[in-house]
Amino acid sequence: MKEIRIGLLGLGNIGTGTYKALEMNREKIEKLVGGSVKITKILEKDIDRERDITVSKEQFVDSIEAITEDPDIDIVIELLGGVEPASTFIEKALLAGKHVVTANKAAVAASWEKLNAAAKKTGVQFRFEASVGGGIPVLTPLAGCAAVNQYTEVLGIVNGTTNYILYKMTEEGMSYEDALKDAQVKGFAEADPTADVEGIDAANKLSILMAIMFDRYIPPTQIPRAGITGITKEKIEEAREQDCVIKLIAHATLHDDGSFTYEVRPTFIKNYHPLAGVLEEYNAVYIKGNLVGKLMFYGPGAGPLPTGSAVLGDVTEIARSIV
Amino acid sequence: MKEIRIGLLGLGNIGTGTYKALEMNREKIEKLVGGSVKITKILEKDIDRERDITVSKEQFVDSIEAITEDPDIDIVIELLGGVEPASTFIEKALLAGKHVVTANKAAVAASWEKLNAAAKKTGVQFRFEASVGGGIPVLTPLAGCAAVNQYTEVLGIVNGTTNYILYKMTEEGMSYEDALKDAQVKGFAEADPTADVEGIDAANKLSILMAIMFDRYIPPTQIPRAGITGITKEKIEEAREQDCVIKLIAHATLHDDGSFTYEVRPTFIKNYHPLAGVLEEYNAVYIKGNLVGKLMFYGPGAGPLPTGSAVLGDVTEIARSIV
Repeated sequence: MKEIRIGLLGLGNIGTGTYKALEMNREKIEKLVGGSVKITKILEKDIDRERDITVSKEQFVDSIEAITEDPDIDIVIELLGGVEPASTFIEKALLAGKHVVTANKAAVAASWEKLNAAAKKTGVQFRFEASVGGGIPVLTPLAGCAAVNQYTEVLGIVNGTTNYILYKMTEEGMSYEDALKDAQVKGFAEADPTADVEGIDAANKLSILMAIMFDRYIPPTQIPRAGITGITKEKIEEAREQDCVIKLIAHATLHDDGSFTYEVRPTFIKNYHPLAGVLEEYNAVYIKGNLVGKLMFYGPGAGPLPTGSAVLGDVTEIARSIV
Repeated sequence: MKEIRIGLLGLGNIGTGTYKALEMNREKIEKLVGGSVKITKILEKDIDRERDITVSKEQFVDSIEAITEDPDIDIVIELLGGVEPASTFIEKALLAGKHVVTANKAAVAASWEKLNAAAKKTGVQFRFEASVGGGIPVLTPLAGCAAVNQYTEVLGIVNGTTNYILYKMTEEGMSYEDALKDAQVKGFAEADPTADVEGIDAANKLSILMAIMFDRYIPPTQIPRAGITGITKEKIEEAREQDCVIKLIAHATLHDDGSFTYEVRPTFIKNYHPLAGVLEEYNAVYIKGNLVGKLMFYGPGAGPLPTGSAVLGDVTEIARSIV
């Protein structure tokens, strides 16, 4: 039986979740692949941290080269997060002829051209389903079974932290500050919530969606954006009076006249719109295509196991093609 | 440039929509495929019918063998509808070594074992994304990027006719009879609505979903079902008092104790549940997986262009693999 060997970069929350997800569903995954799937090396400094998985210390390595220069490794999973050193490591792996799977929206969005060029150069697969919408299968269907459409619009609730905060403000009348605190207690917001509440994370995801759907790469720093820090109880009430809810929407439109607009900002969404029913920390991507009309993909936008689901989905597709 | 040649079975509404969809988006589709895609032969008796597409009369053939025995044809698209002769034709095409794409839920559900065995025998692809949820990419993601999950449940609104009728009864207080008439006028219900309102169509789709998600084939005739003909204004009101809406749900559950249950029936769905927001004639498939948690796929469950979108999605995947 063919063995697929994986090098894992990062064993934090998402890395641990992905490792655990593979252990939990190994039987089904190996049946899908038609071969065995094994994480053989892990690049991680924090060897002694308590994790609810069993990892042999011999798996840990302390340099990226120990993985990229290992001829036995077929696939590299990058779960370090952040633009650097992740982008450099991904590029190095691609140029070394390794297929790469990542959940890292910041790196994919910032380094789109460089990373895709590297994958093309060595003819390997570069997959990042988990980078937008966490566990939701959305990029693969948009680039695959629905790609026969000419897309005209995307509206995404692609940040769970802000959706949770706005949900709490809407449903329970909380102030922004209280809702943020609640999100932090529940683990839906980080101690420094800037990237989420200022729309930076959503802009990264919009950049990736636009590149996939419209074949247009707009660096995330060039996407106009407004976050949710200015949303008040009064604004929530104003929306309610118009039969709307406020959602942080990542929005791009290809207009009839050929012009293309994009932005991330809090938006009034009518109560009957499918996006209005995306509650709590859930995510959804709503798109329009010239054949299919309207589609929506809904699910968990974050979390170790859901993200692990999307990462392992990419790994499985690559492993199938190898086997 | 490689040319992919297609034989089309049936040029009714869906066949015409698929033909038109290919004409509309040919440029994008051929770019995805990396080759040209051409419908070279059409099996259809009604040659003279008015259609808003340009088809040369020389393309029409009057026997299935003219397509299955043509060595130049790579893919057969079956859009005749109904169990027979569609099942026989699909099997013949598969055994002749043609890849087959169909939107025909009745044939796929009734002849699941026979057709998949035929595809396996000759090593060709048998794809039927459009058979469940019309234009929604759902079977492909469930069998692909999300398949690393152990699925535990599926709840599907997979029949647009009944969803439209129940929507009109809920939103406008119509009686069942008036809502059915309205659906017939709008083209959402057929003159004989039995297959839709009695849940037969939904049972076909549940049969396919269960086979894909749980690797269990249950013939649609063995699925317990209740339709919506007995739904009264009073029942709708009773649901409303419990903060629910009534939806015709195709439901299967793999329980913790290993037992497996399935049925199609009108079901009270809480207003906050994502399925409650699936309005008018839209469809949605809501699933649970042990890694990802909850996912929902939403979109148009029928219509010539949406169905054409899903059919051409399958065609494109096959054509890519040929090229």
